[in-house]
Amino acid sequence: MSKRKHMHRKHRLLGTDNKVITSPASAEATACIHKMCYNAEELVSQQLTMQEITHWQAPPAHVAWINVHGVLDIALLQAVAKRFSLHPLVLDDILNTEQRAKLDSYPEYLFLETRLFYYDAESLSVSSEQISMALGREWLLTFQERPSGSFEPVRERLRQGQALLRKSGVDYLCYALLDSLMERYFQVLEAINEDAERLEAHLLDNPSPEDLQNIHRLKHVSIELRRAVWPLREVLNSLIRNEHGFFSPQTVPYLRDLYDHTVHFTESLEAIRDTLSGLMDIYMTSLSQRVNLEVRALTVVAMLFMPATLIAGIFGMNFSKMPWIDDTYGFWWAILIMLTIAIAMLLVFWRRQWLSSRHQQ
Amino acid sequence: MSKRKHMHRKHRLLGTDNKVITSPASAEATACIHKMCYNAEELVSQQLTMQEITHWQAPPAHVAWINVHGVLDIALLQAVAKRFSLHPLVLDDILNTEQRAKLDSYPEYLFLETRLFYYDAESLSVSSEQISMALGREWLLTFQERPSGSFEPVRERLRQGQALLRKSGVDYLCYALLDSLMERYFQVLEAINEDAERLEAHLLDNPSPEDLQNIHRLKHVSIELRRAVWPLREVLNSLIRNEHGFFSPQTVPYLRDLYDHTVHFTESLEAIRDTLSGLMDIYMTSLSQRVNLEVRALTVVAMLFMPATLIAGIFGMNFSKMPWIDDTYGFWWAILIMLTIAIAMLLVFWRRQWLSSRHQQ
Amino acid sequence: MSKRKHMHRKHRLLGTDNKVITSPASAEATACIHKMCYNAEELVSQQLTMQEITHWQAPPAHVAWINVHGVLDIALLQAVAKRFSLHPLVLDDILNTEQRAKLDSYPEYLFLETRLFYYDAESLSVSSEQISMALGREWLLTFQERPSGSFEPVRERLRQGQALLRKSGVDYLCYALLDSLMERYFQVLEAINEDAERLEAHLLDNPSPEDLQNIHRLKHVSIELRRAVWPLREVLNSLIRNEHGFFSPQTVPYLRDLYDHTVHFTESLEAIRDTLSGLMDIYMTSLSQRVNLEVRALTVVAMLFMPATLIAGIFGMNFSKMPWIDDTYGFWWAILIMLTIAIAMLLVFWRRQWLSSRHQQ
Amino acid sequence: MSKRKHMHRKHRLLGTDNKVITSPASAEATACIHKMCYNAEELVSQQLTMQEITHWQAPPAHVAWINVHGVLDIALLQAVAKRFSLHPLVLDDILNTEQRAKLDSYPEYLFLETRLFYYDAESLSVSSEQISMALGREWLLTFQERPSGSFEPVRERLRQGQALLRKSGVDYLCYALLDSLMERYFQVLEAINEDAERLEAHLLDNPSPEDLQNIHRLKHVSIELRRAVWPLREVLNSLIRNEHGFFSPQTVPYLRDLYDHTVHFTESLEAIRDTLSGLMDIYMTSLSQRVNLEVRALTVVAMLFMPATLIAGIFGMNFSKMPWIDDTYGFWWAILIMLTIAIAMLLVFWRRQWLSSRHQQ
Amino acid sequence: MSKRKHMHRKHRLLGTDNKVITSPASAEATACIHKMCYNAEELVSQQLTMQEITHWQAPPAHVAWINVHGVLDIALLQAVAKRFSLHPLVLDDILNTEQRAKLDSYPEYLFLETRLFYYDAESLSVSSEQISMALGREWLLTFQERPSGSFEPVRERLRQGQALLRKSGVDYLCYALLDSLMERYFQVLEAINEDAERLEAHLLDNPSPEDLQNIHRLKHVSIELRRAVWPLREVLNSLIRNEHGFFSPQTVPYLRDLYDHTVHFTESLEAIRDTLSGLMDIYMTSLSQRVNLEVRALTVVAMLFMPATLIAGIFGMNFSKMPWIDDTYGFWWAILIMLTIAIAMLLVFWRRQWLSSRHQQ
Repeated sequence: MSKRKHMHRKHRLLGTDNKVITSPASAEATACIHKMCYNAEELVSQQLTMQEITHWQAPPAHVAWINVHGVLDIALLQAVAKRFSLHPLVLDDILNTEQRAKLDSYPEYLFLETRLFYYDAESLSVSSEQISMALGREWLLTFQERPSGSFEPVRERLRQGQALLRKSGVDYLCYALLDSLMERYFQVLEAINEDAERLEAHLLDNPSPEDLQNIHRLKHVSIELRRAVWPLREVLNSLIRNEHGFFSPQTVPYLRDLYDHTVHFTESLEAIRDTLSGLMDIYMTSLSQRVNLEVRALTVVAMLFMPATLIAGIFGMNFSKMPWIDDTYGFWWAILIMLTIAIAMLLVFWRRQWLSSRHQQ
Repeated sequence: MSKRKHMHRKHRLLGTDNKVITSPASAEATACIHKMCYNAEELVSQQLTMQEITHWQAPPAHVAWINVHGVLDIALLQAVAKRFSLHPLVLDDILNTEQRAKLDSYPEYLFLETRLFYYDAESLSVSSEQISMALGREWLLTFQERPSGSFEPVRERLRQGQALLRKSGVDYLCYALLDSLMERYFQVLEAINEDAERLEAHLLDNPSPEDLQNIHRLKHVSIELRRAVWPLREVLNSLIRNEHGFFSPQTVPYLRDLYDHTVHFTESLEAIRDTLSGLMDIYMTSLSQRVNLEVRALTVVAMLFMPATLIAGIFGMNFSKMPWIDDTYGFWWAILIMLTIAIAMLLVFWRRQWLSSRHQQ
Repeated sequence: MSKRKHMHRKHRLLGTDNKVITSPASAEATACIHKMCYNAEELVSQQLTMQEITHWQAPPAHVAWINVHGVLDIALLQAVAKRFSLHPLVLDDILNTEQRAKLDSYPEYLFLETRLFYYDAESLSVSSEQISMALGREWLLTFQERPSGSFEPVRERLRQGQALLRKSGVDYLCYALLDSLMERYFQVLEAINEDAERLEAHLLDNPSPEDLQNIHRLKHVSIELRRAVWPLREVLNSLIRNEHGFFSPQTVPYLRDLYDHTVHFTESLEAIRDTLSGLMDIYMTSLSQRVNLEVRALTVVAMLFMPATLIAGIFGMNFSKMPWIDDTYGFWWAILIMLTIAIAMLLVFWRRQWLSSRHQQ
Repeated sequence: MSKRKHMHRKHRLLGTDNKVITSPASAEATACIHKMCYNAEELVSQQLTMQEITHWQAPPAHVAWINVHGVLDIALLQAVAKRFSLHPLVLDDILNTEQRAKLDSYPEYLFLETRLFYYDAESLSVSSEQISMALGREWLLTFQERPSGSFEPVRERLRQGQALLRKSGVDYLCYALLDSLMERYFQVLEAINEDAERLEAHLLDNPSPEDLQNIHRLKHVSIELRRAVWPLREVLNSLIRNEHGFFSPQTVPYLRDLYDHTVHFTESLEAIRDTLSGLMDIYMTSLSQRVNLEVRALTVVAMLFMPATLIAGIFGMNFSKMPWIDDTYGFWWAILIMLTIAIAMLLVFWRRQWLSSRHQQ
Repeated sequence: MSKRKHMHRKHRLLGTDNKVITSPASAEATACIHKMCYNAEELVSQQLTMQEITHWQAPPAHVAWINVHGVLDIALLQAVAKRFSLHPLVLDDILNTEQRAKLDSYPEYLFLETRLFYYDAESLSVSSEQISMALGREWLLTFQERPSGSFEPVRERLRQGQALLRKSGVDYLCYALLDSLMERYFQVLEAINEDAERLEAHLLDNPSPEDLQNIHRLKHVSIELRRAVWPLREVLNSLIRNEHGFFSPQTVPYLRDLYDHTVHFTESLEAIRDTLSGLMDIYMTSLSQRVNLEVRALTVVAMLFMPATLIAGIFGMNFSKMPWIDDTYGFWWAILIMLTIAIAMLLVFWRRQWLSSRHQQ
């Protein structure tokens, strides 16, 4: 994480100060601009080059959605920023891919930062990607680090001519995209929840040190998700207040619905965190019980063998006169006493349930 | 939980976008609509079909309560929604059965989401069901996942012609239903409280690993209840402010009373949680004490047998000249020394209270 | 607790719905009404029957204080409620003896709920009783579950003609009663504090499992007290704002003083809770130290006897040629070696302070 | 503490109700009144008797500072209270020496309660004393339980004719006194901080049970300091708002500066508390490590002696035919095997670093 | 720390009271004043002596940045303070080098306190230095304890004629300096984060007591950073409100951006703290597991040797008639039995994975 942040801090200065900086490494995916213009009647979808975006004019009475992949192609970004008169700080924020969710309002547009999460069930970790949006009166710009497919359902619905989406303005499109992100968040949450439940089952059955690390990792994931969603709540709250009128009154209830989802999300996350704390306690307890069982095993062994060893020692003494010593069955009597004591011990242990290796305390 | 949520997220899109979705599984109970119309003089109670609800007209000067079981029959719900002009998001929320309590106000009606809890004393877990209400000026709609019987007391009081309820408006009916839900919450709380007390008694007596899991489960239940009741407080608070005038001034004190009950509820829940944390500590301590006792048992055994074994070893040495070795009672002197040491040890242990298996430390 | 709550929930319905319910069990104390009317010149104190209260008229220019014992005599309560036009919900609250402190304002009177605490030093537990007050412009009603004697000091001061109390209005009387309750709270706090200090001394000296339970109990008590006093702060805060003018400006500083006392109270309670947490830590630590000591005892025993046993074993071997074996003093040399090793060990242990049974680590 | 509080609660009633109460014990220091009147040109400093204070008139254009030692001389206090028309509750608060910091505003004066702390480095505990101030338009009253010397620096600066202090009004004097109290707080904080650092060094070196008690005591001290300083912040905040105009605009920045110091103070305290929690963890860990070391010592002993004992036992068997048994060097071969095994064991332990008594795990 | 604080408390009195105090020790670096005056066209950079600063006049239409190193040269500071009419409390705050971040507004200038951090990766500790700023309408004063180089990048950009910086006013310069401080904060954060990750890797691999101390130290560092950045958020918040108009509307978005960075910073810090708590848990667990392993080793040894020792003891008994005793291979049979039991035991241990020294539980 550190490398990255340092890097983007350098970028930050660029937007405002016009220093020349070479693009770090070759951009992971070749950058590209994709445009969708639509209204209730028609929909045009096409790729744009850097030249085209510079002179592009929005067709009247259409909603224009321009999506930019590969935010690290700075020249491209600057062309887009110039065309839509974005503030240098907005450009900074787009380049700076470790931002928290936020909302900045400018007279001509709202600028939103959000994050998209990928959950890796193998390593129980999340990676994330920044998605920036600029919502104008008639156009919506979206910026992604790389093609993620998370907006595909919305594109599909647009192509199929889904009524509400095609008839509504650019504000409803913005809502639909945020909603599809939220959908992804809940999918990650479900995955975590399932892993936590699987972990709980495993812990109660057969705790292993790996479980400890998994608890630790899931906690880490839940911290990161909370850090991402918490500021999103504030962002949605600001959008609902709608002070700059970028949203039509018809769209506001949908935003409120989205806000309710973030609240639900954070509460579910808290519940998962509580569960993980509980699992930690159970793990610690299982360790204590294990020490218990080991000590008990030692005690059982000592109690079984020490008396017999003493008896053997006693009859090994070299006194000239000792009972049974010349008796034909003396040896067997001694063995019998040893066995009797050992069996009596075993009976006591059995009644106290000390012989089971399950932790029945 | 994950399956469910995913499912309802799909439903969510339906209300707004009119996609065709088949009802998931066959609805658990056949959906049905039940209507109660009453005023101080008369009460009409009947089942309605989907056709009837479409053209149903509320009789003048009556309170109309329409209850819908089986929210997963989408066609039925859409008919009801159309008849009462419910917003598509309201329909979404009714279908989405994992919502937190909330209040949405629309010009023609208030929409409330609440939850009903079932406590399973066997597995120490709660399951819950969503109950949605839409409160108009002259009608009240309630939606349940399946018949739960939780509204039966209110229906009974209506049928018996209970004065205050029959004379008051639809707002008082809404209060009465919320109050009957609250009654259920307190019953669940009492059940948990009793189980926690039983657990405490068991722990202090004879702690077992099962107790740990039960503490864990009860904590889980208390987390879920808190998550349900916390937003309900906000809902009631909004209702008391009564900004849209759906409640008459006579009913508002009753709402305030209900609010006090939710505060009482959450505080009792906090006290239960504190108790459960205390039980966790006691359990952990009991584990430590058990290790203690095992180690002590080992020490007692070692201290009893090691000296005797040494003495036996000493008289087992093969020196040609050894004291007592040719003495007639030499063997018995040796045994006597062993016994004396053992008895002395036992006396010491007894005075230090090391022999009891109770943890008197 | 659960039984009780369920019970009072039934009562709750009664006040509002006029169902007939028999009084649960026979009221613990026979209910009675006691009246004190006074001004600076005279004071009349007498018992009232149910009939008398119905037609009772407050003498002009007097402060009237009517105290009702035994709130479970419903007929009596209803008579009082009717005479003073109390709202049905107020009657509910009086009957519902598990309420938290609260303030409801009605046009003609303020209604206060408070709790009185009894601390049982034997079982380290508190029981509590509800005290309801209705403060009118010229009268004060107080309702207690049973005679508690907590108002006796105020009555005494009234009888002795204490100046400020007799000259002031009913609002100052209300303050004086609240103040006498607060006095009781501080007495309970002092008792807990003393018990906590005694516990601390005992723990540091000689920890026992009983101490653990006592810590647990005192924590429980402090939770209950906090639950009682926390809402009382809000109540006093509302009284100080004095929005309905039931208090004269001269009395408000006294209320503010009372408020300061509740703040002081809760802070002292927090300090006690912090102390109890610290005691818990000390107890846990003492347990670990005890395990330590037991293991050390075992180690000491093993280290003392194992070398000697080995030596005995060595000289017990049956080789035909062994050193010292035919020596006259061979046996004693062997014994001497054993003793030397044991004494050397003891010296080492003594220098490491392993022989003390005090935990000096 | 409890005795004290009970006591002062009795006093409380006195101010308001004029009961006769004998002064508890003989006042620790004989009470005395000291007066300082000054302006930029002259300064008069003298003792006053009770008679003099009754008829004392403030000289015009002077700042008058009247300091009262020994607040338990009730007659004296009442004389002062009468002269300056203090409210009975103010008198109560002065007598009630267990108050938290607070600010009460009366039309003629502001009344402040603060605390002075003494830190006893021997017992790691703080004792405290109450200092009450009444700030009028032209006079300042201060009340102390006994002479503490904490105001001496201010007196010294007055006598030396320090410019700003002598030229400013009574409000700046009040600030200067509060500032000198704050100075004392920081001295106590420094002392605690140093003790915590000394404790930390000791713990990391050589943990002992005494350290545990010292951590506990320092925590206690930090709790008490926080309880004292937290309300002081509110008091200063109120003073800064300066709603009653007792402070000149020139003095307000100084109060704000003082407020910043209290914030700094509480944050430093929090850091100390965090450190103490960390020390607690380290102590607990050191205990676990010690158990570890003891068990390891036991294991080492067992592993060294058990094989040798077995070998001795084997050659102690009484079979008629045994190898080496008649060999001249058989005994030495056996001893050699024992030594070889023991040395091999020691080598293994040494490589695993099990022989060190330092906890290198 | 304590020495320092005490010291600066003395200084505090100086500013307000003009006492003569000798500068404590010789100021670490000789104090010096450095001036930069610039506008879009030209830039003058020079050292100033104390005399020069006294009579210095800002050239018109230039931004003047005056940086003072070595704040402990009091005469110099007083000269600067006099020239720019700084309030005595401002001078106090500059001298008092243990302040928290804060903002004081005076009519002619804003006064800011911030801190600069140095992270020592060797000792895992931070040291810090105070940086004070006074922002006038046309000049900016900065005060540092010693030359730190943290402002060098800004100076470099000024010299290189970086457009935005040279064209903007003194408010943007102030922002640029704060931003360069923030840059330093993030560098420290990254260093801590890397150290925490290295620690985590080490802990999971091979926990050692040193790790515990390192966790403790990093926690300490994170507490100090939070204490520094938390008040900075409030400061920036106040700057954004811009009540006194020291910032142009063009600069405010940059401040908001800076504010977002502090929020991001504190959240990252919280995540680090959560991670450190998790590491603490893992360390404690590793300790428990180690006890486990030691006890297991002991149990294994006891179980291997005790049966064999018993058998040797049995055949060492002195009965005249014992089986095998005269058998030629009797001895070998006995040895065989011993080995068989030992090998059987080892097989059991191997299947239970008790022989591995890794903690596989």
